[in-house]
Amino acid sequence: MTAEIVSVGTELLLGDTVDTNAAALGRVFAASGLAHYHRQTVGDNPTRLREALELAFARSDLVVTIGGLGPTSDDITREVVAQTLGLELIEDSGILERLKAMFRSRGRAWVETNAKQAQRPAEAAILDNPNGTAPGLYIPVGDKVAILMPGPPSEFLPMLENEVAPILARLGSGQVIASRVLRLVGIGESQVEADLGDLMDGSNPSLAPYAKTWEVHLRLTAHADTRSGALALIAPLEAEVRERLGEHIYGVDDEELEDVVVDLLTRRNETLAVAESCTGGGLGERLTRVSGSGEAFLGGVISYANTAKINLLGVVPEDLAEYGAVSEQVAREMARGARERLHATYGIGITGVAGPGGGTAEKPVGLVWIGVSGPEGTHAVEHRFGGQRQTVRARSQTAALTMLWRVLRG
Amino acid sequence: MTAEIVSVGTELLLGDTVDTNAAALGRVFAASGLAHYHRQTVGDNPTRLREALELAFARSDLVVTIGGLGPTSDDITREVVAQTLGLELIEDSGILERLKAMFRSRGRAWVETNAKQAQRPAEAAILDNPNGTAPGLYIPVGDKVAILMPGPPSEFLPMLENEVAPILARLGSGQVIASRVLRLVGIGESQVEADLGDLMDGSNPSLAPYAKTWEVHLRLTAHADTRSGALALIAPLEAEVRERLGEHIYGVDDEELEDVVVDLLTRRNETLAVAESCTGGGLGERLTRVSGSGEAFLGGVISYANTAKINLLGVVPEDLAEYGAVSEQVAREMARGARERLHATYGIGITGVAGPGGGTAEKPVGLVWIGVSGPEGTHAVEHRFGGQRQTVRARSQTAALTMLWRVLRG
Repeated sequence: MTAEIVSVGTELLLGDTVDTNAAALGRVFAASGLAHYHRQTVGDNPTRLREALELAFARSDLVVTIGGLGPTSDDITREVVAQTLGLELIEDSGILERLKAMFRSRGRAWVETNAKQAQRPAEAAILDNPNGTAPGLYIPVGDKVAILMPGPPSEFLPMLENEVAPILARLGSGQVIASRVLRLVGIGESQVEADLGDLMDGSNPSLAPYAKTWEVHLRLTAHADTRSGALALIAPLEAEVRERLGEHIYGVDDEELEDVVVDLLTRRNETLAVAESCTGGGLGERLTRVSGSGEAFLGGVISYANTAKINLLGVVPEDLAEYGAVSEQVAREMARGARERLHATYGIGITGVAGPGGGTAEKPVGLVWIGVSGPEGTHAVEHRFGGQRQTVRARSQTAALTMLWRVLRG
Repeated sequence: MTAEIVSVGTELLLGDTVDTNAAALGRVFAASGLAHYHRQTVGDNPTRLREALELAFARSDLVVTIGGLGPTSDDITREVVAQTLGLELIEDSGILERLKAMFRSRGRAWVETNAKQAQRPAEAAILDNPNGTAPGLYIPVGDKVAILMPGPPSEFLPMLENEVAPILARLGSGQVIASRVLRLVGIGESQVEADLGDLMDGSNPSLAPYAKTWEVHLRLTAHADTRSGALALIAPLEAEVRERLGEHIYGVDDEELEDVVVDLLTRRNETLAVAESCTGGGLGERLTRVSGSGEAFLGGVISYANTAKINLLGVVPEDLAEYGAVSEQVAREMARGARERLHATYGIGITGVAGPGGGTAEKPVGLVWIGVSGPEGTHAVEHRFGGQRQTVRARSQTAALTMLWRVLRG
């Protein structure tokens, strides 16, 4: 079965929005064994959208549209798909009730333009959208299928995972592509290439590295008649990679470093507190993305100003004066202070120069000291990160998590 | 003049690569006054690429391909474009020499497959690629133009800026498209549509709303012979929008809410401290994205555990027991505690149920209390956000910044 994406939105053509949704959907097509040969992107224009849909239905069995389901007048996908397929739209009273209830529960006034989001072809099945107003639609037409999905990624991605992926798995047939991603920290992409170069020539299974922010991801991909067949092709390649670079592999597939750290802490019945200067709360934010992190992560201090370091963490004012805020001494005191004030098993302290201002010859932009304090004592490591403000901050978070991960892994 | 992008690469369809190049090129099309109605994405397949190119040349004056210019056997764009346009490829001795010199200077052995990157139609002009091996090509054919660009962003983006943007500015009819984005908080997309619907029918200038996470962005776009002419068309529309919804407009173009809040605080010589539970440090992270935020933002406490609320913020244990951690009382005490402990002008306290677990009938997932404490006193507001964990957390941050923005604006 062939699948095609039609991404709808003038903002995509203007370049205001990057089409991350289509990439995510492409990955699910591949995982489902759906052949995916074309993607089209058109603006919020009924004539051009109709032409794109006609072309898509002429050459592909399954057409998934992304975007244009909202309440405003430039949201035209529902109507144009119905016209193109010769289907009539009816008002779905169930959707309408749910919409009105949603407005009530959020204390927002009902506006009549929202009612168009309750329209659907009689043939259509509803795809739940708990994160927004417009539901998705699944429309079978003869031997073709149309699926309509909303554009905001916060609505699109959960709908893809929960509603659409199972449908695509059912529709897909034949050769299944399976992938497995090994996630590495503490090693650069060129070193990975040097260590694994001889494994990267294969095509089934294949091995490809992707450089991320202070991580490297290795994608192992294979195809076979079944998913388990494809995975069986991947297994020996994974074993060889683990043999060579296992000490750097912290997780697989969607596992983030914070997931692994929170999981290790929870299983060890241990806790963590943080003290963040240049990252400004970003490490805490990352740790608390993990749902259920509250057992292991107690919180911490955003010690952006020196008064916060002194008042809330007990950093010694004389050390701040003598060594400066970005120093081994202060990173250690921050880590220890967070650990002690929150009675945590471990404390992390991050202090650095994120830039673009604030750098000196002695302490340039990118200099970051990270301390970890635990039952075995306190140590700190100096980093000199490249990149701009946000990159330095992101790398600092990952480096801090990596330090703790190494301690926890033993 | 109409322009169209054909992005080439199986990795785009598989979703391994997100097409950021096409977005960047779309922005340059818009700035050059080129009408941009279609984008196609195809894999490394000669037949389908040829079909895509035929469609593109049939409906567009300028076709820019991205990707498929490299040395390997799946790099087919150069050959297929030449076939589609009926042009012959010749070997360019200048390119070939440059390629061989590049290999020598990097100490890499010359591999004969690289020679195909030196091929071009006789009609083509070379677009320099100092960051990679394959040059770009500019090919005029009758009244149409083809431009071929490499896929790696590290090669594509510099070539876009240095070689292609000047060409596009010249090809653009002289008509320049200018846009201005007004950024609103505290109002939903459908309410914006209800208030401004009559203004959304125009085409020059045009007005379109985009729903963001708890924000609405309004894009005002116009085209004219000059940028100032286009901006002059936008000005009266902007004035009318401001007349109707000015109280919700916090910024324009790329200004983020945190930029505006930090700027207001800095200009007023005032300071801010935060106390974050369900957002886990995310508000601090957002505020410290603003470079130079250290004057206004002092830091705060990530009070994920109740011990952190009590020890670091002075929240009264009896209030936690009586009202619960997610309550008006505790949000107020958190805001006040952050303000007092850090001697800040303002304190913000955020406590809520981000989910997916932890909700009850009385305190469901999405319930968030936000307190703001300042010289005029302390108040707290209840929110009931929809969406999943990350959405609830992001909305909480924006709502907190909105509350403070309203206080600061007076």
